[in-house]
Amino acid sequence: MTRASTPSSSSDSAPAAPVRRGRGRRPADEVRRDILSAAGTLLLNEGMASFTIERVAATAGVSKMSIYKWWPSKGALALDGYFNAVENTLAFPDTGDIEADLLTQLRAFVHLTVDTPAGRIVAELVGQAQTDPDLAAAFREHYSGPRRRLAVEVLERAQRRGQLRADADPRIVVDQLWGACYHRFLIPDEPVTEEFAAGLVTNLMRGLRP
Amino acid sequence: MTRASTPSSSSDSAPAAPVRRGRGRRPADEVRRDILSAAGTLLLNEGMASFTIERVAATAGVSKMSIYKWWPSKGALALDGYFNAVENTLAFPDTGDIEADLLTQLRAFVHLTVDTPAGRIVAELVGQAQTDPDLAAAFREHYSGPRRRLAVEVLERAQRRGQLRADADPRIVVDQLWGACYHRFLIPDEPVTEEFAAGLVTNLMRGLRP
Repeated sequence: MTRASTPSSSSDSAPAAPVRRGRGRRPADEVRRDILSAAGTLLLNEGMASFTIERVAATAGVSKMSIYKWWPSKGALALDGYFNAVENTLAFPDTGDIEADLLTQLRAFVHLTVDTPAGRIVAELVGQAQTDPDLAAAFREHYSGPRRRLAVEVLERAQRRGQLRADADPRIVVDQLWGACYHRFLIPDEPVTEEFAAGLVTNLMRGLRP
Repeated sequence: MTRASTPSSSSDSAPAAPVRRGRGRRPADEVRRDILSAAGTLLLNEGMASFTIERVAATAGVSKMSIYKWWPSKGALALDGYFNAVENTLAFPDTGDIEADLLTQLRAFVHLTVDTPAGRIVAELVGQAQTDPDLAAAFREHYSGPRRRLAVEVLERAQRRGQLRADADPRIVVDQLWGACYHRFLIPDEPVTEEFAAGLVTNLMRGLRP
C-alpha cells in the first residue's frame, strides 16, 4: 500500500522538478516520517476520539492531500502512526537467550499497554474492527500483521539456535504470549501485570507437566 | 443479580396467591428457563442485530416486565441466554486425563465458534464492550467470569491429581488456551482450526524447551 521509501522513487514533486534539499521542499521520506510521527504522538496523547487527518496535517505541516497520497483512511494512518510510535518500545532484544528476551519484550509490552494510553487505544481499535471491515483490514495490514511477523522471526531464530523445540509452531506461540495479553486487555477479568508476563513465559517454556 | 432458584423462594405471584401447577401460572423457575432458552435460540439464529427484549418475551410467552424482573438490560439477557445455550456444548469432560480433556473441550469450542454464529456473536459483544461499560460488566458477570471459573476448577482438579505442576497459575493457563483462541477470533491474522487447538495444548503441556 505504501510507496517505496528510497528517495529516488518517492519524490514528492512532479517529474520536471526533482526534490532538492534546501530549496523549501522536504524530501518525501522526511515528509512521510513527519506525518507518521505526528500521527503517533497525537494518538498516544489524546486517543482515537480526537484523531483527525486535519490535525495530523496541521501538526506535521503538510497538506491533507500529502497524507492521502500514502494512507487511504484515517484508520490506516492511525495504525501506521501507532506502529511507528511504539516500534522502539516493543523492539525484540536479541541477547541469544530466548527466554530472557521474551520476558524483556513482554514486560515492555505490559508496561506500554498498562501505563500509557496505548492499551486502551488498541483495545478500542480492535473493538471497532469487529464491525468495521476496513478498520479490521487496516489493523491487520499496518499493525498486527507486521508485529506478528517480527515475533515469529525471533522465535524461528531461537529454533535455529536450538533453544526452542523445532516442531513447535511459532505462530501458535504468538497467540499464547501476546494473544494471552490481548485476552486480558479486551476481557479484563484478570489484571495484566509483570507477574502475568513472567507466568506466560514460564508456563510455555517449561510446560505444565510435573 | 438473579433471584434464588428454589421453587419456594422464587414465586412469580403475590404472597397471597402462591404458585400452583396446573392453574395457568408456570412456576418462576420454568418461566426463567423458558426466557433463557428463547434468548439463546434467538441470539444464535439471528445474531445480536435483531435481538430485542420484545422478541424474547413474545417467543417465551411472557411479559417484558417478567424479563426485567431478572435481567436489567438487553445485554445481560443476551449474555445469559448465550451462556445457557452453549453450556452443554462447552461442558468440560472429566475422564481423569487432563490433556485429553482439554483437547476435547477446545475442539468443541473451536467447532462452536467457527461453524456456528456463536464466534461472530461473541466477537461483536467483546467489540462493543470496549466502548460500553454496562455491556462489559454484563459480559464479565454473565459469561466470561463463570466460564473462567469453570476452567480454573478443572485445572485445579488436575493439579490435585498431580497431572499439572502445582506451581503453575491456572488463571494464566486459561489465557494461554481459550484466550489464545479469542486472540485469533478478534484479530484474524491466522485461522482457528483443530490443529491450532491441538498445538495450544501440546505447546503448553510439553513446553517449548527442546
